[in-house]
Amino acid sequence: MTGIKTTGEKKMMLFSGRAHPELAKEVAAELGVALVPTTAREFANGEIYVRFQESVRGADCFLIQSHTAPINTWIMEQLIMIDALKRASARSISVIIPFYGYARQDKKHRGREPISARLMADLLKTAGAHRIITMDLHADQVQGYFDGPVDHLFALPVLTDYIAGRVDHAKLTVVSPDAGRVRVADRWADKLGAPLAIVHKRRDPDVANQVTVHEVVGDVNGRVCVLVDDMIDTGGTICAAADALFANGAEDVIVAATHGVLSGPAADRLKNSKVSEFIFTNSLPTPSEVELDKITVLSMAPTIARAVREVFEDGSVTSLFEGNA
Amino acid sequence: MTGIKTTGEKKMMLFSGRAHPELAKEVAAELGVALVPTTAREFANGEIYVRFQESVRGADCFLIQSHTAPINTWIMEQLIMIDALKRASARSISVIIPFYGYARQDKKHRGREPISARLMADLLKTAGAHRIITMDLHADQVQGYFDGPVDHLFALPVLTDYIAGRVDHAKLTVVSPDAGRVRVADRWADKLGAPLAIVHKRRDPDVANQVTVHEVVGDVNGRVCVLVDDMIDTGGTICAAADALFANGAEDVIVAATHGVLSGPAADRLKNSKVSEFIFTNSLPTPSEVELDKITVLSMAPTIARAVREVFEDGSVTSLFEGNA
Amino acid sequence: MTGIKTTGEKKMMLFSGRAHPELAKEVAAELGVALVPTTAREFANGEIYVRFQESVRGADCFLIQSHTAPINTWIMEQLIMIDALKRASARSISVIIPFYGYARQDKKHRGREPISARLMADLLKTAGAHRIITMDLHADQVQGYFDGPVDHLFALPVLTDYIAGRVDHAKLTVVSPDAGRVRVADRWADKLGAPLAIVHKRRDPDVANQVTVHEVVGDVNGRVCVLVDDMIDTGGTICAAADALFANGAEDVIVAATHGVLSGPAADRLKNSKVSEFIFTNSLPTPSEVELDKITVLSMAPTIARAVREVFEDGSVTSLFEGNA
Amino acid sequence: MTGIKTTGEKKMMLFSGRAHPELAKEVAAELGVALVPTTAREFANGEIYVRFQESVRGADCFLIQSHTAPINTWIMEQLIMIDALKRASARSISVIIPFYGYARQDKKHRGREPISARLMADLLKTAGAHRIITMDLHADQVQGYFDGPVDHLFALPVLTDYIAGRVDHAKLTVVSPDAGRVRVADRWADKLGAPLAIVHKRRDPDVANQVTVHEVVGDVNGRVCVLVDDMIDTGGTICAAADALFANGAEDVIVAATHGVLSGPAADRLKNSKVSEFIFTNSLPTPSEVELDKITVLSMAPTIARAVREVFEDGSVTSLFEGNA
Amino acid sequence: MTGIKTTGEKKMMLFSGRAHPELAKEVAAELGVALVPTTAREFANGEIYVRFQESVRGADCFLIQSHTAPINTWIMEQLIMIDALKRASARSISVIIPFYGYARQDKKHRGREPISARLMADLLKTAGAHRIITMDLHADQVQGYFDGPVDHLFALPVLTDYIAGRVDHAKLTVVSPDAGRVRVADRWADKLGAPLAIVHKRRDPDVANQVTVHEVVGDVNGRVCVLVDDMIDTGGTICAAADALFANGAEDVIVAATHGVLSGPAADRLKNSKVSEFIFTNSLPTPSEVELDKITVLSMAPTIARAVREVFEDGSVTSLFEGNA
Amino acid sequence: MTGIKTTGEKKMMLFSGRAHPELAKEVAAELGVALVPTTAREFANGEIYVRFQESVRGADCFLIQSHTAPINTWIMEQLIMIDALKRASARSISVIIPFYGYARQDKKHRGREPISARLMADLLKTAGAHRIITMDLHADQVQGYFDGPVDHLFALPVLTDYIAGRVDHAKLTVVSPDAGRVRVADRWADKLGAPLAIVHKRRDPDVANQVTVHEVVGDVNGRVCVLVDDMIDTGGTICAAADALFANGAEDVIVAATHGVLSGPAADRLKNSKVSEFIFTNSLPTPSEVELDKITVLSMAPTIARAVREVFEDGSVTSLFEGNA
Repeated sequence: MTGIKTTGEKKMMLFSGRAHPELAKEVAAELGVALVPTTAREFANGEIYVRFQESVRGADCFLIQSHTAPINTWIMEQLIMIDALKRASARSISVIIPFYGYARQDKKHRGREPISARLMADLLKTAGAHRIITMDLHADQVQGYFDGPVDHLFALPVLTDYIAGRVDHAKLTVVSPDAGRVRVADRWADKLGAPLAIVHKRRDPDVANQVTVHEVVGDVNGRVCVLVDDMIDTGGTICAAADALFANGAEDVIVAATHGVLSGPAADRLKNSKVSEFIFTNSLPTPSEVELDKITVLSMAPTIARAVREVFEDGSVTSLFEGNA
Repeated sequence: MTGIKTTGEKKMMLFSGRAHPELAKEVAAELGVALVPTTAREFANGEIYVRFQESVRGADCFLIQSHTAPINTWIMEQLIMIDALKRASARSISVIIPFYGYARQDKKHRGREPISARLMADLLKTAGAHRIITMDLHADQVQGYFDGPVDHLFALPVLTDYIAGRVDHAKLTVVSPDAGRVRVADRWADKLGAPLAIVHKRRDPDVANQVTVHEVVGDVNGRVCVLVDDMIDTGGTICAAADALFANGAEDVIVAATHGVLSGPAADRLKNSKVSEFIFTNSLPTPSEVELDKITVLSMAPTIARAVREVFEDGSVTSLFEGNA
Repeated sequence: MTGIKTTGEKKMMLFSGRAHPELAKEVAAELGVALVPTTAREFANGEIYVRFQESVRGADCFLIQSHTAPINTWIMEQLIMIDALKRASARSISVIIPFYGYARQDKKHRGREPISARLMADLLKTAGAHRIITMDLHADQVQGYFDGPVDHLFALPVLTDYIAGRVDHAKLTVVSPDAGRVRVADRWADKLGAPLAIVHKRRDPDVANQVTVHEVVGDVNGRVCVLVDDMIDTGGTICAAADALFANGAEDVIVAATHGVLSGPAADRLKNSKVSEFIFTNSLPTPSEVELDKITVLSMAPTIARAVREVFEDGSVTSLFEGNA
Repeated sequence: MTGIKTTGEKKMMLFSGRAHPELAKEVAAELGVALVPTTAREFANGEIYVRFQESVRGADCFLIQSHTAPINTWIMEQLIMIDALKRASARSISVIIPFYGYARQDKKHRGREPISARLMADLLKTAGAHRIITMDLHADQVQGYFDGPVDHLFALPVLTDYIAGRVDHAKLTVVSPDAGRVRVADRWADKLGAPLAIVHKRRDPDVANQVTVHEVVGDVNGRVCVLVDDMIDTGGTICAAADALFANGAEDVIVAATHGVLSGPAADRLKNSKVSEFIFTNSLPTPSEVELDKITVLSMAPTIARAVREVFEDGSVTSLFEGNA
Repeated sequence: MTGIKTTGEKKMMLFSGRAHPELAKEVAAELGVALVPTTAREFANGEIYVRFQESVRGADCFLIQSHTAPINTWIMEQLIMIDALKRASARSISVIIPFYGYARQDKKHRGREPISARLMADLLKTAGAHRIITMDLHADQVQGYFDGPVDHLFALPVLTDYIAGRVDHAKLTVVSPDAGRVRVADRWADKLGAPLAIVHKRRDPDVANQVTVHEVVGDVNGRVCVLVDDMIDTGGTICAAADALFANGAEDVIVAATHGVLSGPAADRLKNSKVSEFIFTNSLPTPSEVELDKITVLSMAPTIARAVREVFEDGSVTSLFEGNA
Repeated sequence: MTGIKTTGEKKMMLFSGRAHPELAKEVAAELGVALVPTTAREFANGEIYVRFQESVRGADCFLIQSHTAPINTWIMEQLIMIDALKRASARSISVIIPFYGYARQDKKHRGREPISARLMADLLKTAGAHRIITMDLHADQVQGYFDGPVDHLFALPVLTDYIAGRVDHAKLTVVSPDAGRVRVADRWADKLGAPLAIVHKRRDPDVANQVTVHEVVGDVNGRVCVLVDDMIDTGGTICAAADALFANGAEDVIVAATHGVLSGPAADRLKNSKVSEFIFTNSLPTPSEVELDKITVLSMAPTIARAVREVFEDGSVTSLFEGNA
């Protein structure tokens, strides 16, 4: 045969945008690699400039960016970095999005709204992403928005291990903060073998129009309640739910959520709440104004690193979580 | 200017596959049009042949097919009809899918599963569909699977109007048959101004592995319960939920769901159930073996016809349901 | 350089849908591999569920499905399996379709028909197929419908080897059953060094409108005729052609075709025909009602297995058949 | 409603490349429009420059280019003209290709060949074509190569009308020049109610390797034979077939084909042939060196003009030929 | 014919993002329409929410957004608005981008950079844009990045008309601020019939590494110099060029540019410069800290409004500027 | 795990179209491989036929074709070769286009023009190209027209090395032949450390309409001027510029350009010019009628071969030129 034949090689390279470099560094440390040196900055008018300082030709590239504030800037930076990888002849581009922005806009609640969660998936695809690695999407269906493989990681094992080691099992009750999140709480209850309760927010038919009451469904009197959710954003729902639990006789309330978005009034609400501990993962950086003693942050870097390794070595990502869920 | 200039015209044509011609005829009657005469049949080896008997060139084509059994045959027929419309120079192709098949496979529950609901959307797009008109999707997020406009109709107004006229409001309680459908029940409760209850299916920690108990959350004693869901397939969940309600003292139980799939053991289960009435829409044909006195079928043809007219005349489909929901 | 570098590996995995597992097993045996354990079943309403029981990440996947009855079900199963492979991070997906359904609908015979053979190619592409391996397409042009490589295998060597070992060469005449298949018969005649005859079906100008006569063009008196075609579906054309050959003095008639579709009236027609032997390949399972002593089925598994091996090892598929044709 | 509302208008504009302006002018005259003034020329290095001299914004544009020599130049010019129309905001672009180049490369005859007929369809789509109007494709399956509507016109009515008026019906026999074109001859025979014969080119088993004999199948003695084909390129096959007919006692031979490609040795072959008349359409310009008294060229301009009008006015193109075929 | 036929209508609707509403209002006033009422805001975590308050079904939608600071937020808002229009069944979506962000990143200056200007075009296409209307792109080639029609407007006529009315023609010299912008200055010189000069920035071979000198090429002594560019960003280049002109004896220096980006140190530089007048268009809002007496802002609203009207009414946009340029 | 696992291999194969086989052979020699034997020829009517004589399955294919005259034929041949590689299961297809045709039509200079440079990129993509390797594009922005990686090589190091070895550095001045090419000249001046001059072509305001004068900006009296450009086509601009330099006292003029297109009147112009030496690369074959003593052709084969090797071995192409530019 005419031509040149050689043994194939493959190489993995890890990149980070500027949104959450601490997590990227932890993942790199777990993998035993260095992050690829990268220039990324804004021009005076806010346009982002990116350049990689090493050849990426033929590499399987993994690019970490979490969609924290300023969220549109970091999403755009990620798209631009993907474009640069594509044009620099990366063999494959896997984007790691610990917290996937716009996931809540996953349907038209009313006419003439966007479905931004689908749009983000399409923008990533257009820029050149081949795969998404993400964690605890607000709705599982968002996986289907990306035209390609999505590796969906779960924080449940990390969070429940921590809780199990901290709370007296006999006193534990898992609580959903509203009717729409019961499925998540159900998984927790199964995993921890604990009873389930629900805080149900609804209109009081006896009173005026917009007033809602927080009914607690299930027995929480004298219990240590773990309120669970995928994310805490402004903290309004979760703090009101905690109040309702205390009002119904809960001995203590702990809040556990994968994503600590913690924007706007969250800092004040968390500080003022009677909740004894808030547990998040480091899928997002904790805003400095929310750094409280009662906040515990668990690292997802080992899980992400294992997923990267399995993807690179063509192992099974399913095995990462199926044993746990 | 060189060329020929004329006033633009537009025309609407309505087509039906063979899955549910009764509904298509009702929609046609509502619109005051005839269905386009169409040849559709199978060859001896099961391949489907389709041909339209009138020119469709330049027409805005609306093609009704509901995904009933044999479901793969009717989906394939729909794809083939779309292909024929595309190649025959239809100006636009809107597919009306009163019941969207495979909507429940909307995520990977475990590794190495398909996301068939997304696949169906992509197949429709590839065949040539420009728009989907559908009704009460199992998860709202499925809207985002189609790369184009989706008009999502709701049966809620039709169903609640019927219930409101039939049940004493003072006795009415809306019940969700499991934790995952609480949001649907919530909309019903809001619309009817009725209290809410939940049947929660969970593992009994005291007994063996696979056993589940049906807890009723909320007060149903002496109440007329309306169990609501988007679809009833084999009827297992809903009939067990009804049993739990009667066991907890319900005076009567009525079941209301948009889609009466009613496959496999559903016929026996419905017949043997103590539920006094099952209410469905005609989004699917009722299997002949399930034709019971206690089944009521409400027609969605007026709603679908109005949606077609609004789409054709560039009116607002949002207005169809926002006033009601 | 930053990152991790390792020697590349590649792995091949073989999958089968439920349409024709016998063939898949034979191919697997030829290759010395096991079929990947796969869950595939229908839900009560006919929706297909598929899941692979091993990680397919990074593998070159070969998926066998022949388009036999119920044809739309098996095509849909194949599309769903492809989707599952794609989302499970298969490196490449080659679909092996021994008999390609809808191949005969390869043009608009009249206005407003679909071109279903193109549609199937597009659906396979959309689901995620990278390559098609198929056999004796009804028209060679169908290769061009798929936007990617198509490996087109021929059964001619297997079939002619068998004939050559069974029939006295001096008595052999190759016959085309109608004017449209003369090219196929021509290749047979060349390969076997035998004379050619044609059965020409045409309207009798002396009689009424729809009547056709079967003229035999060429000398078949006292000859052993091999009637050849790419597929036998209902058997009408081929059995009428055989009758015409016997009426013109043929000593014996043998029928040879790659694809034994054998649907509808084929069972009766073959049984009642004076044809002494029908020879097919196992591109399709033989319907049980057509299992007759005079049917011979030759295996294409060795040919398919060689094609799979060449594709996986980047050898030449062309060389598989160019030496023979 | 906010905004401006007006009555819709539509306009049709007709364009021609430089390949065959005579035909474009005839079509324009039939339609009663002028061709849009267009600048088209080559730069010194052969790059083609195109510009339209009128606004085409919002127009339904019809662009005629026949793929005659220098064929690659004219195909490229057509692609460039389509690009210019697309960027100038044409509402729709229909390309009229009376003779579709590369149609014969419609499959891989051997491994590692292109399927150029599909490539051309994809290039036209990429440039921006929405529809193809073409005539008597070498294989009908090529219709399926274009991802959009194809209007396939037939010259059969024009050619058979001419023959019917010129030849004594009682003496007429339709002849296929080789086994592969029997289907075309069959349609002619049906249409003219005439008997059919075939010239079959095959290897002589008694003589050496590459030698072929031309057998005449069917009775041509004393008959006026009409040899029919879709195209005459170098004239080799057709002239050899005519010789065989004369050798078998034909009284006269007439050749009729849609496309007179007439390249290379065709001029000499036609001049030296005993064929009394060659009948082509003007789908291609007749090369000046082939202008012979015995060549008759029939105009397809009325048929093309009717197709354009039906497409523009959303009428039925099917009706153009179904009455005739 | 079966179906309903009506006269076609078309309607135009005008939308604005939040980047530069003043310009949108001016354009609306020119067109005599109201902007479509639109909800657009950020959630606490920075995600953008958009909803249109009127049905847009079937409308030709024009959406104005200029890429000013915070630039990534406004680009994302525009993409989300396009998505919402697409899913709400807009007939066409034309995006008006008076200043196109990232236009300067139009090539890889060095390896492993993105081509962000192409990426932006692809993102707009993916979101659903059919057409771009933009103004004075940094490089004309960026037009070709969008896969669809681009209407490229010029501010030259507006700017030169103003200059012609303000400066004594006999004293006027047009100056390019660096070698790369000579083509722009050339068009100005042609239009104004004025002589041309160039400020050439280059390394001084006699001195150290990074030092550059500003040579003035051409005679500027005693002249009123108009320094022209497509955009002024931080003002560094243009102010240094002006200094060089004064140093070479210029009587006065005026700066004219289409886009007043004016970011970072621009405010100080403009204030401290000896330039007597800075002339921009309102393609971008003028940052409040740069509001100086010597800044003149000319409105492009009439030009944009005329382009919108021509696009909507299928007139010629070319005619808007060809008469002027 | 089920399946077969082997060590990955990769192979490189080099192909050449018929446009410029000399260059392909030089590149092959540099790489130490043979060109893959290929059949490529025209049929009588000008259609191109291509077939590769070895299996290309799984190979990284590099296909050289320079867009010389007859340019449309060679572009079409390249597209057809790409199609054949794609359908023959090449693993990747890199097209090497030393001179990229139609690069000058990179924008709409006036309304209703094509952007042919973008069209070419899209055609290459559609045919199946994954990567373009090209050299000194007329505008760098053309890189962004291809949706995939573009490796853009520079001839500057080769050309300047030659000049540096031939001309007395103290006497050297780099000259741009018109205002639009100043950037190129600027890079030369930087690289050679030489002063810069510009020939500026503009309308004489004192005389009639279309007359232009060639002003020389900068001092060229007694200097050895190197006139630089990316390409010399008909030679008009460059020879007029040389005349202007001599008229302004230049001692000698040398012309250096990457691409010697040299079409139409170039042969005469170069012969008659007082320019002492014309230096081109072999990106294009030199037309035989332009073979003059004073033409020097430098080979880019080593540069191209290094780029191919880096691409195949996943090295850095950036490093090829960044050290030089």
